[in-house]
Amino acid sequence: MGIPERIEAALERGLSFCEMPSSCPPGLSAAMRHAVFPGGARLRPSLVLSVAAACARDGDGDEGEIAETAQADVAAAIELLHCASLVHDDLPCFDDAAVRRGRPSVHAAFGQELAVLTGDGLIVLAFDILAQADVPASLLRSMLRTVARGVGAQGGLVAGQAWESERTVGLRTYHKAKTAALFQAGARLGAELSGAPVGPWAEFGARLGEAYQVADDLRDTLDDEANLGKPAGQDAAHDRPNACSVLGINGALDRLRALLDQAVEALPTCPHPERVVAWVEGFGARLYPRAVTAEEPSANHNMVADLRA
Amino acid sequence: MGIPERIEAALERGLSFCEMPSSCPPGLSAAMRHAVFPGGARLRPSLVLSVAAACARDGDGDEGEIAETAQADVAAAIELLHCASLVHDDLPCFDDAAVRRGRPSVHAAFGQELAVLTGDGLIVLAFDILAQADVPASLLRSMLRTVARGVGAQGGLVAGQAWESERTVGLRTYHKAKTAALFQAGARLGAELSGAPVGPWAEFGARLGEAYQVADDLRDTLDDEANLGKPAGQDAAHDRPNACSVLGINGALDRLRALLDQAVEALPTCPHPERVVAWVEGFGARLYPRAVTAEEPSANHNMVADLRA
Repeated sequence: MGIPERIEAALERGLSFCEMPSSCPPGLSAAMRHAVFPGGARLRPSLVLSVAAACARDGDGDEGEIAETAQADVAAAIELLHCASLVHDDLPCFDDAAVRRGRPSVHAAFGQELAVLTGDGLIVLAFDILAQADVPASLLRSMLRTVARGVGAQGGLVAGQAWESERTVGLRTYHKAKTAALFQAGARLGAELSGAPVGPWAEFGARLGEAYQVADDLRDTLDDEANLGKPAGQDAAHDRPNACSVLGINGALDRLRALLDQAVEALPTCPHPERVVAWVEGFGARLYPRAVTAEEPSANHNMVADLRA
Repeated sequence: MGIPERIEAALERGLSFCEMPSSCPPGLSAAMRHAVFPGGARLRPSLVLSVAAACARDGDGDEGEIAETAQADVAAAIELLHCASLVHDDLPCFDDAAVRRGRPSVHAAFGQELAVLTGDGLIVLAFDILAQADVPASLLRSMLRTVARGVGAQGGLVAGQAWESERTVGLRTYHKAKTAALFQAGARLGAELSGAPVGPWAEFGARLGEAYQVADDLRDTLDDEANLGKPAGQDAAHDRPNACSVLGINGALDRLRALLDQAVEALPTCPHPERVVAWVEGFGARLYPRAVTAEEPSANHNMVADLRA
């Protein structure tokens, strides 16, 4: 199975309890599935598996090798945490977004109560899946720490979201926590799964995450709802830090390109770098807002050429 | 240190990162601390530590023995999950409660955004603390599963809350998930921490949890906001299942007493049962609504006598 199929299978395994109405109320089951299926690009879990593949040592059947299924379970946990953050982020008290991935958001379809509980349930489920993944117990502790730091109030996703409630916040501090922390956790997890040193991957993941956030800001500013599959102009509407308002649109585009270059430069030595370069190419191609690529079709081709250089 | 002091110290350790504004935004820090300090009775973590003490084998310095600090960390994790559920439960889309423990609820004091994030952050923090607790890696996996099942969408607290969004639900299914699952997890964790078999403690924890929920329903029906430290009459206002509306007030009081008796009968054989009986006595004394104990002051004394019998 390819990476996308392994991720979907792991997510299906993780949510299979939703079919048991004795343990999960039907409304919550439906809302949790709605939050997870069909997904977006599954960027974060595919980053985990791509980095794991890039770091895989040759020679099958290595004793310390973690089975593909267990790797996919770990990747699925990261995706569930991302989905949880989208569900809560769409709530009326944050973005008040009725649309997500071109469909009704969870609170629009199921009500706010179930949206809050769906996010909570997905967070717990992610840790449950991680805890039960067939990885050595010694690795479990460090993976749990990686994930908690990526999503929690201590410099992770939750902290990033909470910076939006502060009067003053540096754009980099905000982006680092809101988006980069989870990409960084994903890259670290991939290295951990293949027994590679995690330190060298932190910088790579951080640059990817920052790039993603700048691209998200550009899209929020330049794209429309039909392209985005969610409301546009949310940052201006909520008076939130946005790379375009701070750097200007050209400045933000320059910064996006610089961050992607820096990510490639930060790519650590590993047995199969091409496996993660392929992921970065796909990632880069998705980042440029359609409004820009329509005017300037070579934008992401340059980036991919840079990556190949 | 006694159990209450150990719990407070562990909670302080867990939330110490809130003092570092570089990783946690000040508003979120303040809201998370507000959700946790000062606490209520800390019933769930003290259950964990009381069961662990009851199951402790004599002879200090046993090799498999888990340090008191690590035990308190595990107990603190359970309390943080309970606090998270209160913060989300108070949100306008659920109870819309402006008051909790006699003070403004988190959303009343800090706004809904930070209340949602506080709950999310506390859930992640609980799993982080569990993962880092100084317990053998082999025990970690089973404790994480115990906790996830206690709070998650699969028969845990989140499932219990979500039953409120269903048109039909059995009272026992609802209470079992909404309240009993976490008490059950607490009792199991206590046994796990002392290396005792967990199976026999499940029934005990379940009965305690059901008793708590019936008492909560009685208080919601009979008490007023001044006594409760939170709004009364919420179940009727939200048309939610309540033991009093199903069984009548006398029926609910009978059921509460029966559940406490059943809990005591279900107490497994262990080296120091008196340590957990003391906890049950304190628990029982707290359960009777003040409106009832004022009229019928012997109510909980009878129960305590039953427990001692």
